[in-house]
Amino acid sequence: MPLMSNYLRSDLNDTICALATPEGIGAIGVIRISGSNAIELVNNVFKGKNLTQQASHTAHFGRIIESSNPENIKVIDEVLATIFVAPKSYTGENTVEISCHGSAYIQQQILQTLIKQGARSAKPGEFTMRAFLNKKLDLTQAEAVADLIASNSEASHQTAMTQMRGGFSSQILDLRERLVNFASLIELELDFGEEDVEFASRPQLKDLVQNILNLVQSLLQSFKYGNAIKNGIPTVIVGKPNAGKSTLLNALINDERAIVSSIAGTTRDTIEETFIIDGILFRLIDTAGIRKNTNDAIETIGIERTFESINKASIVIYLFDASTTTSAELATELNALVKNQAVIIPVANKIDLLNEANKTQIIDSFNNINSLYKPLYVSTLQKENLAQLNQKLIDIVRGDEVKNDVIITNMRHYEALLNTSNALQDVLTGMDLQQTGDLLAFDIRKAIFHLGEIVGDITTDDLLENIFSKFCIGK
Amino acid sequence: MPLMSNYLRSDLNDTICALATPEGIGAIGVIRISGSNAIELVNNVFKGKNLTQQASHTAHFGRIIESSNPENIKVIDEVLATIFVAPKSYTGENTVEISCHGSAYIQQQILQTLIKQGARSAKPGEFTMRAFLNKKLDLTQAEAVADLIASNSEASHQTAMTQMRGGFSSQILDLRERLVNFASLIELELDFGEEDVEFASRPQLKDLVQNILNLVQSLLQSFKYGNAIKNGIPTVIVGKPNAGKSTLLNALINDERAIVSSIAGTTRDTIEETFIIDGILFRLIDTAGIRKNTNDAIETIGIERTFESINKASIVIYLFDASTTTSAELATELNALVKNQAVIIPVANKIDLLNEANKTQIIDSFNNINSLYKPLYVSTLQKENLAQLNQKLIDIVRGDEVKNDVIITNMRHYEALLNTSNALQDVLTGMDLQQTGDLLAFDIRKAIFHLGEIVGDITTDDLLENIFSKFCIGK
Repeated sequence: MPLMSNYLRSDLNDTICALATPEGIGAIGVIRISGSNAIELVNNVFKGKNLTQQASHTAHFGRIIESSNPENIKVIDEVLATIFVAPKSYTGENTVEISCHGSAYIQQQILQTLIKQGARSAKPGEFTMRAFLNKKLDLTQAEAVADLIASNSEASHQTAMTQMRGGFSSQILDLRERLVNFASLIELELDFGEEDVEFASRPQLKDLVQNILNLVQSLLQSFKYGNAIKNGIPTVIVGKPNAGKSTLLNALINDERAIVSSIAGTTRDTIEETFIIDGILFRLIDTAGIRKNTNDAIETIGIERTFESINKASIVIYLFDASTTTSAELATELNALVKNQAVIIPVANKIDLLNEANKTQIIDSFNNINSLYKPLYVSTLQKENLAQLNQKLIDIVRGDEVKNDVIITNMRHYEALLNTSNALQDVLTGMDLQQTGDLLAFDIRKAIFHLGEIVGDITTDDLLENIFSKFCIGK
Repeated sequence: MPLMSNYLRSDLNDTICALATPEGIGAIGVIRISGSNAIELVNNVFKGKNLTQQASHTAHFGRIIESSNPENIKVIDEVLATIFVAPKSYTGENTVEISCHGSAYIQQQILQTLIKQGARSAKPGEFTMRAFLNKKLDLTQAEAVADLIASNSEASHQTAMTQMRGGFSSQILDLRERLVNFASLIELELDFGEEDVEFASRPQLKDLVQNILNLVQSLLQSFKYGNAIKNGIPTVIVGKPNAGKSTLLNALINDERAIVSSIAGTTRDTIEETFIIDGILFRLIDTAGIRKNTNDAIETIGIERTFESINKASIVIYLFDASTTTSAELATELNALVKNQAVIIPVANKIDLLNEANKTQIIDSFNNINSLYKPLYVSTLQKENLAQLNQKLIDIVRGDEVKNDVIITNMRHYEALLNTSNALQDVLTGMDLQQTGDLLAFDIRKAIFHLGEIVGDITTDDLLENIFSKFCIGK
């Protein structure tokens, strides 16, 4: 049972209602009502079959009426009411979904009528919070619901789906179980402390902790990739004017336009352009600074703003005109760029303009600057070799991918795993130092606690409020 | 059976799909699939119970999978699929409603998967058109669905609801039946033409036609009111600067803010401000022209733009400062205004500033200008007598209201009723001229034809296309 405050627990007795579909004019809208009293409450304003006598998971045609004045009953809408009887519902409570006409006026009238009957407007994420409190979902699954709704590329969608279906939770629970077993053995020894028993050989226990630590660290490593696919890979194209940046940009964007080019309500920087290659979302950070200064971009790279934008990027595409750039120039510019954290992809453009006679020689001179930074050779105009660039972008992202089905995408999980990892490392150090069992047990319990935070075995009101307030209302 | 082209009829064999909820991020989205093959088609990509073996009106939890590669099945979403077995569905066909997570990416993936299975993207209004073709709705009821979705005030909502529930249709069908009976009698006489029989006395028949004609005309009269409540009453406030226009505007708007202040996708003029009094929507036409020229507004009323804006209005509120305006000035300005079609409401503002000594005298002088245009006396600042203005606005609108439950809101219906009325008048004239039965029968058949157009007994592809293309997709 999660640790919950009285406030949240008493809140669970209410019947809540909210519009579950987006605002705006559409064919239909769905209003969701959940709570022990939900079916009776809707039935009071529903003209049709008696909803309280219907089987779970059945849909019923009828009318929502305003019941304030029985002499003059006003029909608000003809609707379909679908009944879900507890515990077989999303929230685990009695739930009704009213499918009404997609008019803001009608939806508001129905919600008002429900509120008059005693329902309360749901807070953001309150349906999912109830699902969590009623053990329909653990905390990572609940968090995945929000990620799933926000998903806008194949990779972010698949990660959220795996997490929602419990893939992540089952790994965490598995780790936790192994640690609990380990702790039991240590604590059993403590009970026999006077007798100096060892129930498990120390080397075997150490192997076990090391194994668990490796798994935790592989999950931690997946965060870089997970965070990238959830939020998009920040990518910058730099280069002098006429290097072909706009043509490249258009080639990248037009072919693989993202479904959602900017996500409302997120606190990230403005996303100027996004594109998807092979299911991975790339965000093109459009810094005026870079554009303005590309004239002498790399020479004046000291300019703070340009630095900042490149620092924000995971990938910098450095595009240059192969027909006019000398290898000395390229060397200077690459040297300035490689000081940054981002992965640099030098891209030589306009290879169609290269003199056939000395083409090989030119390419050799570029390739010899730094063996780690051999350029890609493309023609944005002729659309030559652009697939190579796409492949390179994908390779960079997939290079961070870990051989693990489960990918961490959530900062909260990352922090909890980091704490787990630290506690486990303390256990290993303690074993090396021949620490007593009670000290080892303390660190192991710490690791178990932090794993428990992830799935929601240990929660606080603040944590729940923080997680669910980011949801949309109606979920 | 409606007259339908082969094209539309063959189209009915397809299975169609569309997102039925508004675009955007929400808790859930609903995808609707309709067609004889709909349940089998969804079942092919649904992992859960066998949907083809479930009862109508039942909801089933399961997963939508991408089935292209059976080796590597990808889960697109966890969904609820609700089954409606023909003819017990909105369209009258087999229908599935998939309630999925509210992500544009997921919705698109599900639609793509359905299309790969052989479904087709629905055209705007195609679900409702199928409901019409399958006789679940007549044409006026189908049209009311679109009105219902667009409804944004109590009055427009109630009118659409009455129409959708068949109130209008039943009046039309009743008129039509009476005319058909009348025609039968006339035509029976024709069969006995040689014998000069009269099955019904001419005066009785004339009474009958006159009665029907009266009903048709009362419906025609309701159009002015119906059109106003559907689209909002165009209202203009004119007056010199500092007359208190902005204060009045705010008083009207803040108290009774409309739910939807501008409706997307309609082809009307930009609605600047809307407000609802007593369930009736007023649209405040915000013409820069009027504002700019109010300095010498009425004097320069010849300016075409100002004329136009006042011509568009049904109601013109002429606001003036009672403490500074002379009755001569008011007389000139009212004379200029009353040339227009709109109803003029002169409103004397700032009565709180009137000198108590000669207040009565000033008011008398204003009242004596024109007994039809006695001003209302208000103080926008002190919020005095504003309720009187609200009541006046409502009275004007309700003055057009007819003592008929059924109100015409649709231009198409208005035109058909006008044609019916003309044909019936021809019948009456013909009877007066002792026309022969065959000529009378011809005009009666014409009236019957036009009434048939309204409910959709007589339709053409163009007509249907025109009606349903105005719907949103998914309805």
